[in-house]
Amino acid sequence: MIIVLKQNVEADRQEQLIDWFKGLGLGVHVSDGQYQTVLGLVGDTSKVDSDLVASLDIVDSVKRVTETFKCANRKFHPDDTVITVRDVKLGGGHFATIAGPCSVESEEQIVGIAKAVKAAGADMLRGGAFKPRTSPYDFQGLKAEGIELLKIARQETGLPIVTEIMNITDLPLFDDVDVLQVGARNTQNFDLLKELGRTNKPILLKRGIAGTLKELLMSAEYIMANGNENVILCERGIRTYSDYFRNTLDLSAVPMLHELSHLPVIVDPSHATGMARMVPQMALAATAAGADGLIIEVHNDPPHALCDGAQSLRPEDFAKLAGKIKTVREAIR
Amino acid sequence: MIIVLKQNVEADRQEQLIDWFKGLGLGVHVSDGQYQTVLGLVGDTSKVDSDLVASLDIVDSVKRVTETFKCANRKFHPDDTVITVRDVKLGGGHFATIAGPCSVESEEQIVGIAKAVKAAGADMLRGGAFKPRTSPYDFQGLKAEGIELLKIARQETGLPIVTEIMNITDLPLFDDVDVLQVGARNTQNFDLLKELGRTNKPILLKRGIAGTLKELLMSAEYIMANGNENVILCERGIRTYSDYFRNTLDLSAVPMLHELSHLPVIVDPSHATGMARMVPQMALAATAAGADGLIIEVHNDPPHALCDGAQSLRPEDFAKLAGKIKTVREAIR
Amino acid sequence: MIIVLKQNVEADRQEQLIDWFKGLGLGVHVSDGQYQTVLGLVGDTSKVDSDLVASLDIVDSVKRVTETFKCANRKFHPDDTVITVRDVKLGGGHFATIAGPCSVESEEQIVGIAKAVKAAGADMLRGGAFKPRTSPYDFQGLKAEGIELLKIARQETGLPIVTEIMNITDLPLFDDVDVLQVGARNTQNFDLLKELGRTNKPILLKRGIAGTLKELLMSAEYIMANGNENVILCERGIRTYSDYFRNTLDLSAVPMLHELSHLPVIVDPSHATGMARMVPQMALAATAAGADGLIIEVHNDPPHALCDGAQSLRPEDFAKLAGKIKTVREAIR
Amino acid sequence: MIIVLKQNVEADRQEQLIDWFKGLGLGVHVSDGQYQTVLGLVGDTSKVDSDLVASLDIVDSVKRVTETFKCANRKFHPDDTVITVRDVKLGGGHFATIAGPCSVESEEQIVGIAKAVKAAGADMLRGGAFKPRTSPYDFQGLKAEGIELLKIARQETGLPIVTEIMNITDLPLFDDVDVLQVGARNTQNFDLLKELGRTNKPILLKRGIAGTLKELLMSAEYIMANGNENVILCERGIRTYSDYFRNTLDLSAVPMLHELSHLPVIVDPSHATGMARMVPQMALAATAAGADGLIIEVHNDPPHALCDGAQSLRPEDFAKLAGKIKTVREAIR
Repeated sequence: MIIVLKQNVEADRQEQLIDWFKGLGLGVHVSDGQYQTVLGLVGDTSKVDSDLVASLDIVDSVKRVTETFKCANRKFHPDDTVITVRDVKLGGGHFATIAGPCSVESEEQIVGIAKAVKAAGADMLRGGAFKPRTSPYDFQGLKAEGIELLKIARQETGLPIVTEIMNITDLPLFDDVDVLQVGARNTQNFDLLKELGRTNKPILLKRGIAGTLKELLMSAEYIMANGNENVILCERGIRTYSDYFRNTLDLSAVPMLHELSHLPVIVDPSHATGMARMVPQMALAATAAGADGLIIEVHNDPPHALCDGAQSLRPEDFAKLAGKIKTVREAIR
Repeated sequence: MIIVLKQNVEADRQEQLIDWFKGLGLGVHVSDGQYQTVLGLVGDTSKVDSDLVASLDIVDSVKRVTETFKCANRKFHPDDTVITVRDVKLGGGHFATIAGPCSVESEEQIVGIAKAVKAAGADMLRGGAFKPRTSPYDFQGLKAEGIELLKIARQETGLPIVTEIMNITDLPLFDDVDVLQVGARNTQNFDLLKELGRTNKPILLKRGIAGTLKELLMSAEYIMANGNENVILCERGIRTYSDYFRNTLDLSAVPMLHELSHLPVIVDPSHATGMARMVPQMALAATAAGADGLIIEVHNDPPHALCDGAQSLRPEDFAKLAGKIKTVREAIR
Repeated sequence: MIIVLKQNVEADRQEQLIDWFKGLGLGVHVSDGQYQTVLGLVGDTSKVDSDLVASLDIVDSVKRVTETFKCANRKFHPDDTVITVRDVKLGGGHFATIAGPCSVESEEQIVGIAKAVKAAGADMLRGGAFKPRTSPYDFQGLKAEGIELLKIARQETGLPIVTEIMNITDLPLFDDVDVLQVGARNTQNFDLLKELGRTNKPILLKRGIAGTLKELLMSAEYIMANGNENVILCERGIRTYSDYFRNTLDLSAVPMLHELSHLPVIVDPSHATGMARMVPQMALAATAAGADGLIIEVHNDPPHALCDGAQSLRPEDFAKLAGKIKTVREAIR
Repeated sequence: MIIVLKQNVEADRQEQLIDWFKGLGLGVHVSDGQYQTVLGLVGDTSKVDSDLVASLDIVDSVKRVTETFKCANRKFHPDDTVITVRDVKLGGGHFATIAGPCSVESEEQIVGIAKAVKAAGADMLRGGAFKPRTSPYDFQGLKAEGIELLKIARQETGLPIVTEIMNITDLPLFDDVDVLQVGARNTQNFDLLKELGRTNKPILLKRGIAGTLKELLMSAEYIMANGNENVILCERGIRTYSDYFRNTLDLSAVPMLHELSHLPVIVDPSHATGMARMVPQMALAATAAGADGLIIEVHNDPPHALCDGAQSLRPEDFAKLAGKIKTVREAIR
């Protein structure tokens, strides 16, 4: 950690700060510049709160040299992590597609879509049972019943199931779920992350609504530091001033997360754009950017459900897209 | 709700959509423009998911006329809400200052600061017992013990206590806390909000890290729709591209929230700037913008705790600031 | 244009507003809802300043139904525009790659790179002669001499040349340049755009530092409304809170601009990421998203210029990338 | 400047980099950490392009210790700059209010408003003659004629006049204007800034649409380095994801700019909010934050101009506000 002091700091205040760092077991290199003094800390600086140091009145600015994430850090774990979900592999060269409806609605619906996406080449089935909604008046999901229906769909198709958990107290209901998803509004629900760290389930961790890459990796660290190393990172669009999209898909996150971490990185083009007609282009772009997988909303569009799933692809569009994804995967090898 | 259709939509698809709205019990006004058709929905549109409608391939765009928040909406509740915490009032012309340390550390510390901020004119005491930290390796708070120490400080000074809750399962520990704070990372932890809606405690609800005003009001709605109308809204800075600040304090939120809602609005200049030396100017600016209160970090700075609380004001600076806040309050009347 | 009035607007003020619209030659449809009245304007609303209307105290909100850009609008010009630069075509299925150094430095440098990128498959040569720099103390480019060197490189290779213009008064110097680039800091330099609209040169128009898609199209409109329809739109990353990148490349802009406009859309992955090692992934992702071309920084890296061009690819990396771009182009057909 | 190298950099590449810095006349301190090596540059690093260094493949990150702005930097010029415009002073404890219409429309209009704002206590008159508009189809201002009308208003009232310049070639028209304004879309129009640096006119420099504080100061530096030290910085709201406002007023910019620079800082609450009804609260908040002045839109609202100036205050509201500004100024002393 490098600390740039303000100009003209009194000698005793500077000494006091240096002693404080030494008291934490750190070495301190002092270098006096033309205008300002710079301190270099040597040792395990992960216990130093850099925001706190930056806020001291004698400090101009602070820069971390070593990242505070350890378990998720590629520096300490150079090889790609491969996540295994039943017989599906994701990461380290293995690409997997997760497809399914936004919400589970009925047995007929979820089994029908499961069969359709399997036929189209999907590797896992997604479907929301617990739904985080901005409005308390919007549909909140079938909850426990939704999970049961997902299990039926798995039995019928063999596809592993992925569904979102919002609350620690619901954890027992997810005992037989294959991959637990943490949504963008819960990326920094640290108590939930810790608890998931005590399971051995693969966790699909979405980037926060306006989350930084470092925050995403620190949230992964919460899970991993508690013992569960099966974390899949997911880019799902960030909040910007965009005038036409709900979110801005940040595909540069894919190669950067691969550089910073050994964890697999997947992309959710459905939530990022909020428009079915933009999903294929963004799915292909994510694939070309090197993503390890995709999570895509697909619905079966029965005539009586005009609106539901309208932001999702139809199975036939998904099948067509799945073919192109394969050719793009080959093209970038 | 107003729905602008795309150009050249087939007649039967347009009819299908109109029938679907009618099936929801809504009236539909159709007006054909030069290039595009516009539908106007009449009735209770709060059950229509506008994102879903916007994502239909025949829809160009959607605009809500009536906001989906009801309980928090000034249109339906014109008078200011006044929150009463023991003998302190906040909102509707009553201004209150909440002061105290970032974290509760020891009985000596919290009682000492409580006495100091009371003497300086604070109306309530804040102090973190459960601390949400980006890194799992940072100090996570004294938890239950911290709450006990806050109660001792309250006994010594009479100041009502305000502290953050991160997790539903901790709720019993907060039985004797006066105001429960929901932090910026939990503003959309909907299960927590629902549970807090079933208590009768005043809730200090912080705006999300990159939360919109509508989202903040919808989160208040989660609490209020479950029966608890004692919600205090808190602006604490939003995430932007800022090069010198951790967050950007959005003071225009104050008059706009007052226009949209009857709930009181307070401002947290300490977290917004992250620098003690910027807190006084921003506290005064918030007061001038019409805030109903402030929540400010204050610490007592014992020599052995060089860093801790460094982003906080000292009691003597807080006392000086409290005096100026009063004169600004009078100046804007 | 749809105008939602506030609740309880006095009848005479509403009438006054309606009369004002009628005075502009517009038809006004009035529909009274349960709480609020909605006005629908029919006719050429492009002369109504929607910000102004939105700011009226009796107006709740305003929504445009028809976009204000006409020349750039796909609704009125359904076919893709194809830009022809000497014998290179761009748009409407024609893909072109523009490559070259950030700055022109010497004849040897620019001719050397021109030959290298031509051999690697580039279609045009880029190189900065006038350089917009945040600091007045940074290198500002070789200016007129730089343009002369580009012409020599064109003579040697046959590659059309692309270079940035910052100032109307420099226009005569660009007489023999093939494509004039408008940089992100000048996207809303309206006087410059108008002047470029009076030339018949192809204009490569970059999106503003934090520009919306509508602003980009309105800037194109400034050029086109003055008579020059040869505009190439360029996504180059937008400003966000990103912690690892200078800008956030917004690839969803590609399919959305294609939907909104008939103009070709290219992507600049070099400026968007600021890191040579991230350029190949982002160039391939842009291609997969459907871009009509790419503009990429390439330098030749002589040993005596250690730093210069360090954010650029080397010719051999560019050649490798160019091959993959071709296979991705085929994969998405 | 501090440069953190990547792990395991080859010795000869590290040496090459160090030699390159030495070749620029800089001293280089090398300190080897546990995982990474850190270089500290000593000397005039303003000529080193930090983006370029950061983009080298052997470099992890770069941090400037000394800011690159010199003329605008408080470190080198501790005393507040006071700008004198005729007999009005601004900065260093002198507060000035600039008021007037968005656009100059007619002699009657501008003279009428000038008299009204003078009576209400304004110190200078603003009015747009050249108008930057997002759409080429919107009113672009009266141009030269507008400047003549402003001069008449000055003659009638004695108020110095402030108006925007968009283009170098118009400079002769501004010969007799008191303060030249550079708008948010031209903050990084460097050729314009250089030219203004060669005049001796006070320049009111607005922060860019999504400009950082450093960029604003570097733009001031462009003017000052060319010889003109009369720069007034202006906060006017920044682009964020805000759902209710056109821009987000960033009042924390006021104390931070005062800390970084000796230049006066004023605030434009009219453009920041885009709503007349929010202007008073934000004007008072800006005053409380320590601004050196305000620039506020005021119009006279003749019945025949229903829309024009609707985002502006009426003279009577401005007069009331001016009184409160004075009391807030006294309150914060």
